[in-house]
Amino acid sequence: MARSRLTPEREAELYGAVLDLLREVGYDAVTMDAIAARTRSSKATLYRQWGGKPELVARALRHDKPVMLGEIDTGSLRGDFHAMVDAADDCRMDRDSALMRGLAHAVHNNPELHAALRELLIEPEVIGLDRLLQRAVERGEVSADRPALKYVSHMLVGAFVARQLIEDKNADREFLSDYLDAVVLPALGV
Amino acid sequence: MARSRLTPEREAELYGAVLDLLREVGYDAVTMDAIAARTRSSKATLYRQWGGKPELVARALRHDKPVMLGEIDTGSLRGDFHAMVDAADDCRMDRDSALMRGLAHAVHNNPELHAALRELLIEPEVIGLDRLLQRAVERGEVSADRPALKYVSHMLVGAFVARQLIEDKNADREFLSDYLDAVVLPALGV
Repeated sequence: MARSRLTPEREAELYGAVLDLLREVGYDAVTMDAIAARTRSSKATLYRQWGGKPELVARALRHDKPVMLGEIDTGSLRGDFHAMVDAADDCRMDRDSALMRGLAHAVHNNPELHAALRELLIEPEVIGLDRLLQRAVERGEVSADRPALKYVSHMLVGAFVARQLIEDKNADREFLSDYLDAVVLPALGV
Repeated sequence: MARSRLTPEREAELYGAVLDLLREVGYDAVTMDAIAARTRSSKATLYRQWGGKPELVARALRHDKPVMLGEIDTGSLRGDFHAMVDAADDCRMDRDSALMRGLAHAVHNNPELHAALRELLIEPEVIGLDRLLQRAVERGEVSADRPALKYVSHMLVGAFVARQLIEDKNADREFLSDYLDAVVLPALGV
């Protein structure tokens, strides 16, 4: 498919509008008509450029660049964790929570969408975490055979979702910071 | 609204069909037409008896009785946790996972639905857990001011959801049992 007729700015604007619609009404209720109207495009153009809704949504998810944990290195695991939370952005977390809600059912039935969501929201976090944990093991802060090591991403993703389900609030920096000190670091024996 | 014309068996069958539809297609895509067809009812009857889709879905959620943790009391926190996992049912967990996915977006925009989901899936677990943790504190197994105490339900609900997002698998008894030993008990200092 030739995508060359769109400028990068126009493409970014279009993908942003698709993600906004996903957050607002959820995947199933997003129609190509609504996307065309919101982005002032013709439906024919959308179909010609992307082929269909799953392809367009997956591409929009992939276009949104996540915050990387790669650069964080404070010299201690506690310091790294708290730097991670300090670098997070409450607004961005609200937007990611809305995306996860909007996609939860659809991804289960659509492997391509699921792959895009994992690539955007899950894997960069998991890879960044692994690096940070590996350094903590090398420094001797955490024993290499500590069972909780393989569940750190579960604890963090879980905290994010559980806050909503149990307390009806989005996770924010204050909550995540307290959760790190109360749960994640003690589970790792730090 | 007079519900007296339905027998309890017929009512249970109808609520069961509504929950199956929710798991299959998600809240937004469930229509009163589909419910009428699946349950061999007339749409007029459904509207007369329940008023509308949110009321009918909320009532169906409330009708499904959750497993209670109330009876578990083995004499130790580790024993209670593992008895809880042993009493769980992999099939039931799969069905609850599907319900959560089907409702994730809708509950955010519909307070009555959210209340029904909390009442069905979240609160019975939280109350059962609190009782079990209170006994562990009274036995001296966990210090009353242990910070992780207030996050045990977050850890468990989170484990449930994170398994899906990260590993693309439903939580099952084997996973939960390992998570309890690796994360929850160490975070509590047990």
